[in-house]
Amino acid sequence: MVTKNQIKLVVNLKQKKYRTQHGLFVVEGEKSVKELLTAGMRPFQIFVDVPENLERYPKAELVDVRTLKQMSSLKQPNGILGVFQMPKSQEELMTDWTVVLDAVRDPGNLGTIIRLCDWFGIKKMVCSLDTVDCYNPKVLQATMGSIARVSLVYTDLVGYLKNTDLTVLGAFMDGAPVYQKELPEKGILVMGNEANGISKEVGTLVSERISIPQFGEPSTESLNVATATAILLSEIRR
Amino acid sequence: MVTKNQIKLVVNLKQKKYRTQHGLFVVEGEKSVKELLTAGMRPFQIFVDVPENLERYPKAELVDVRTLKQMSSLKQPNGILGVFQMPKSQEELMTDWTVVLDAVRDPGNLGTIIRLCDWFGIKKMVCSLDTVDCYNPKVLQATMGSIARVSLVYTDLVGYLKNTDLTVLGAFMDGAPVYQKELPEKGILVMGNEANGISKEVGTLVSERISIPQFGEPSTESLNVATATAILLSEIRR
Repeated sequence: MVTKNQIKLVVNLKQKKYRTQHGLFVVEGEKSVKELLTAGMRPFQIFVDVPENLERYPKAELVDVRTLKQMSSLKQPNGILGVFQMPKSQEELMTDWTVVLDAVRDPGNLGTIIRLCDWFGIKKMVCSLDTVDCYNPKVLQATMGSIARVSLVYTDLVGYLKNTDLTVLGAFMDGAPVYQKELPEKGILVMGNEANGISKEVGTLVSERISIPQFGEPSTESLNVATATAILLSEIRR
Repeated sequence: MVTKNQIKLVVNLKQKKYRTQHGLFVVEGEKSVKELLTAGMRPFQIFVDVPENLERYPKAELVDVRTLKQMSSLKQPNGILGVFQMPKSQEELMTDWTVVLDAVRDPGNLGTIIRLCDWFGIKKMVCSLDTVDCYNPKVLQATMGSIARVSLVYTDLVGYLKNTDLTVLGAFMDGAPVYQKELPEKGILVMGNEANGISKEVGTLVSERISIPQFGEPSTESLNVATATAILLSEIRR
């Protein structure tokens, strides 16, 4: 029997302050929950709405559809809601590329970028403190479980970038065309805010300014940060 | 003074059947409206909510905020709503790359792909009849005016692809790695549905199956169709 306190906890986890306080976050849907379990993430509680699922999941607890709807961030809850423990920050990985985000605000963009890092085998992301929270339900919905394989750290970017010896690439509208660059085996790729790009402060710590050449008419809108990241990660790996 | 019929027309244009019937579509926001005007698209009527804007736009008509809200597809209408005439289908352009979409359903994906074509200077897209309508308000919101510079045709893809002599590239999970391909100067790039990829029927007309190599763990989710298109168009142009 689910208690009122359990329901309240799950509802509270929609807010970042409670996620940080409890060290817990929520994912919904069979696919995402299974991916996190397979990736070794530790479940705190998994709510299911049919008895058959009780045996299929660790720490499973039965709830009725109405309660699940109350807990869910989705308009149409899809039968399984998992509460997971946030992983402890992992050791610094300095042997490969790291993606750094400076104030990316759109949850869909962050989710897509995490999924791209997963696809291209990039295990570490570092986000500015004003980047959208990666345990935000909309981010999790867009990552499709990739969050289990990509480690994210939120920190002050200036401090972080001052302490690295790696090449720091930054995406700027007026950077050098990436197609003509020899990219190193490891390094840091900085992507900026949707409207303003990389901030001035962080920009001074970028060692190479790069851009994706434009072939259309000059009046064209700049690329979205997620599609630009797709192209740059592809360039890094090709 | 705006008439009831005018309001009804704009509201009806949210539906594809009325857009086709009238040959009209709606874009909202100063930026998008200005871009379409600059690109030479013909305005049918532009509704503005402040008198100063009456002189700034052709065919402008003043409406109060409440009426604008009634007409708008946005939660927060932003002062300007333009009704434009759909362009007549342009002549076949066979001198460059064409992007073909097979049943892309998500408006955000279509909007992003139109914007990508614009960035990479691709002037023509051909969409299957079950691809989401490009004059859908959510698509227009995501294109940011690129719709004015990229021409879209909706047609039966099998008939279209049977009648071309160009190389037809298709994105498949099990295709040959795109990084190792010599890509021709002109051709057709086919991208498939979000869940099912390229349909069997269309697939038989693809001359080269390509894919974006994966570097992460094999359990990773496939790339979203818009990010995959970003990477493939970058490969075509680099």
